[in-house]
Amino acid sequence: MDAESAKLDGLKCFFEPRSVAVVGASRNPLKFGHFLLKNLIDLGFKGEVYPVNPNADEVLGLQAYPRVDLIEDDVDLAIIIVPASLVPQVMKDCSIKHVKGVVICSSGFREAGETGRRLEEDVVAIAKKAGIRVIGPNTTGILNTSNNFTTSFAPLPKLKKGNVAFIAQTGLFAAAAFWWIVSKHPFGISKIVGLGNKSDVDDAEVLEYLAKDEDTKVIAIYMEGIKNGRRLFEVFRKVAKSKPIIVLKSGRSPAGMKASLSHTGSIAVKDEIFDAVCKQTGVIRVSGDLEELLDITKAFALRSLPKGNKVAIITVTGAGGVMTADECAKQGLKLATLSEETLSQIRSNMPSWASVSNPVDIEPLFEAVGPEESINIALDAVLEDKDVDSIIILFVVVPRFIPIFNVKRIARRIMEKHHQPKPILAHLMGFKDTVESYTVQLEGENIPIYSSIEQCVKALGSLWKYKLYQMNNG
Amino acid sequence: MDAESAKLDGLKCFFEPRSVAVVGASRNPLKFGHFLLKNLIDLGFKGEVYPVNPNADEVLGLQAYPRVDLIEDDVDLAIIIVPASLVPQVMKDCSIKHVKGVVICSSGFREAGETGRRLEEDVVAIAKKAGIRVIGPNTTGILNTSNNFTTSFAPLPKLKKGNVAFIAQTGLFAAAAFWWIVSKHPFGISKIVGLGNKSDVDDAEVLEYLAKDEDTKVIAIYMEGIKNGRRLFEVFRKVAKSKPIIVLKSGRSPAGMKASLSHTGSIAVKDEIFDAVCKQTGVIRVSGDLEELLDITKAFALRSLPKGNKVAIITVTGAGGVMTADECAKQGLKLATLSEETLSQIRSNMPSWASVSNPVDIEPLFEAVGPEESINIALDAVLEDKDVDSIIILFVVVPRFIPIFNVKRIARRIMEKHHQPKPILAHLMGFKDTVESYTVQLEGENIPIYSSIEQCVKALGSLWKYKLYQMNNG
Repeated sequence: MDAESAKLDGLKCFFEPRSVAVVGASRNPLKFGHFLLKNLIDLGFKGEVYPVNPNADEVLGLQAYPRVDLIEDDVDLAIIIVPASLVPQVMKDCSIKHVKGVVICSSGFREAGETGRRLEEDVVAIAKKAGIRVIGPNTTGILNTSNNFTTSFAPLPKLKKGNVAFIAQTGLFAAAAFWWIVSKHPFGISKIVGLGNKSDVDDAEVLEYLAKDEDTKVIAIYMEGIKNGRRLFEVFRKVAKSKPIIVLKSGRSPAGMKASLSHTGSIAVKDEIFDAVCKQTGVIRVSGDLEELLDITKAFALRSLPKGNKVAIITVTGAGGVMTADECAKQGLKLATLSEETLSQIRSNMPSWASVSNPVDIEPLFEAVGPEESINIALDAVLEDKDVDSIIILFVVVPRFIPIFNVKRIARRIMEKHHQPKPILAHLMGFKDTVESYTVQLEGENIPIYSSIEQCVKALGSLWKYKLYQMNNG
Repeated sequence: MDAESAKLDGLKCFFEPRSVAVVGASRNPLKFGHFLLKNLIDLGFKGEVYPVNPNADEVLGLQAYPRVDLIEDDVDLAIIIVPASLVPQVMKDCSIKHVKGVVICSSGFREAGETGRRLEEDVVAIAKKAGIRVIGPNTTGILNTSNNFTTSFAPLPKLKKGNVAFIAQTGLFAAAAFWWIVSKHPFGISKIVGLGNKSDVDDAEVLEYLAKDEDTKVIAIYMEGIKNGRRLFEVFRKVAKSKPIIVLKSGRSPAGMKASLSHTGSIAVKDEIFDAVCKQTGVIRVSGDLEELLDITKAFALRSLPKGNKVAIITVTGAGGVMTADECAKQGLKLATLSEETLSQIRSNMPSWASVSNPVDIEPLFEAVGPEESINIALDAVLEDKDVDSIIILFVVVPRFIPIFNVKRIARRIMEKHHQPKPILAHLMGFKDTVESYTVQLEGENIPIYSSIEQCVKALGSLWKYKLYQMNNG
């Protein structure tokens, strides 16, 4: 076995353990250690699960053990959720038991100051000596939708499988953000890895694992600190060749760095350097917050890449067209010059006073052919235009004015009529309930929808930036 | 009567007409001219309404007239929604009738090219000669919630009165954006003015009108072109002293300027110059899109201004705390150094391993006292801290984990316990349905909620920027 496959074996115990000990499993329904065990049961994880609790014979119907090393069977992974001061002793028990990996959910380590920092060093030393790999501490850890496995202590909804993996230096993703994604976003998730204080396993190693994961097509990262910049650079470069990597890195400002020190014990990294690293490796860096990370991830999860940077805008709002054009300029996208054929195809249906250019304002078509046919006419024309690489649709939905039309039918018609369609992204605004219903329908047909024009264009710009990097570094 | 009051009289005919002619009122329920008349009836406008249509005796139950000048009674305002080529003749009829103002909704003027430009010049010449004031062309015009009056041809929901006025160089606000605001945002609207091509009435004049409008506390503007920059500068400076003005100006890039030329016939303005104008006059400029304009407007509509720039962050997500700190740095906000009293007040309830600083991570409190009491403890402490000027709360809502608690009760408790409360803004994430329900409840108590941390901090930053300008230019 060479070094690399040994390492992969090492991470496999985190994602596909056959047997798991939950150290700190609690009968008290208000405790995190209760939620954690309940997740494994409720989600239907098929491996063996052993609660470890010295004060209980059974927890949630499962036989409990006072210590990890007293479990009779093999234990691939221990999930630890006991007070930080008790963790070194648990690690020693794990050494005796020869567990392969531990996920330490407990907080109170490096992020909590000097005592915690020393405690974390002790834990790492024990792990190293015993050959135990560590994720955490200070995290919700793992979520794997392919086998219903998690180490999270936040209750989770029914898992939604998909092609996006998250690596996060926060417990949020295997918790509230997972609910947010499942209830608000159209894409599903393959794996989530919360790395916490990154005392052992780090982004680079997980990236290598995910690069080979067949369930993962897109990798999104929330990052506060970086341990081995050189190695991360190499892995970014290698992995971004085959799978898009989208990164949100916080701790950019002195105040943010200080906050990150007490969140995950992370050390400051010069922001400009990290920026340059992303540019050189084809990694898409997101400057905003989680909303933006998810908005851009959505585009990668749903659409293929554009062949070039020329955009056609189809709009019912002139102001939206202007704002989209402004935003395209910021994102390195150009407004396509529509061919004479395209223009006359659209113009033939327009009233004589309306001028047709790009952005294509289809409102003048409404009185004559209605909203659905207006969109179809414009879409057919720009989809066939060789000088158009991608399309942004800006649409408003107002009861009565725009009679309820069949957005699903529009989307399906495109897919049937135009093979290998160009990326289409859309912005919707209007009556909230109608906007939400249309959003669900259109995203179900792989058209990502944005309530912000800025985010819509940023998402398309990110697809293009990634494509451009591929073209220049093919 | 001096020049200024004459001018105010002039605009009064747009907002409070006693009698209105709808030129182009149609019996065809698919025509814009039908919707327009229907709005006036459905919204319950109490003034006289005269449909003008040479091919009908009555429209929607109202007696119709073949021409404006054939209406027997006085006409304060004519709303014109006929093809552009017919507008000059309608203007001549209006001259004969001595109408005070016209709102020209029709498109096909300056924005449509050379023929349209000449048509617009003709119309303006007729209006000037007859002393008729003009709003538009190419717009939805006016919405006044205090008397249920509108000139919009987009069907509108039940009006929601409030303290925000919009001046917009787009028809969107008296249309889809109105639905968006009513169904998604907590604030109400006093007046909307769509200025279209600004052939006569412009932003400056409307600003002067709104400065004296008792229903209006906050003024938000979407702008593409500027006709008289010097005058706008003066009016910005004068009006921003008493009412906050928030501006989104598009047409920043060459592509955006070109799109704006064919949307409202606007001529390019150097973006850096406009930026400087806003800074010098205390006008808040928004760089994003309508979402951002509405998000920032929301904060001004709901909250009073902070006394200083020191922010306390109360959070259940460490990552959120880091991102908020980063964003505060961008917005000129500082993290408050919490007093020893504040810290010990919070610490007394915390488990020993948890460190307390700003951002205040309240998650460690949860197991002991539950989420509602956790927020109360932290909020009480920072609200009493003299070195805290405003508060950002970052909260996640996940079924089961955070048992449904009473957010309304939290908000009301603050209002009762702490007089003249500091600005509180919040970010919510988690299960969509719960997030939305909490959002409605909290915004009902004047706590603006954001799903994006970036927008949340930008909104607070804007309140602070406006306050700072007041302090430096009081």
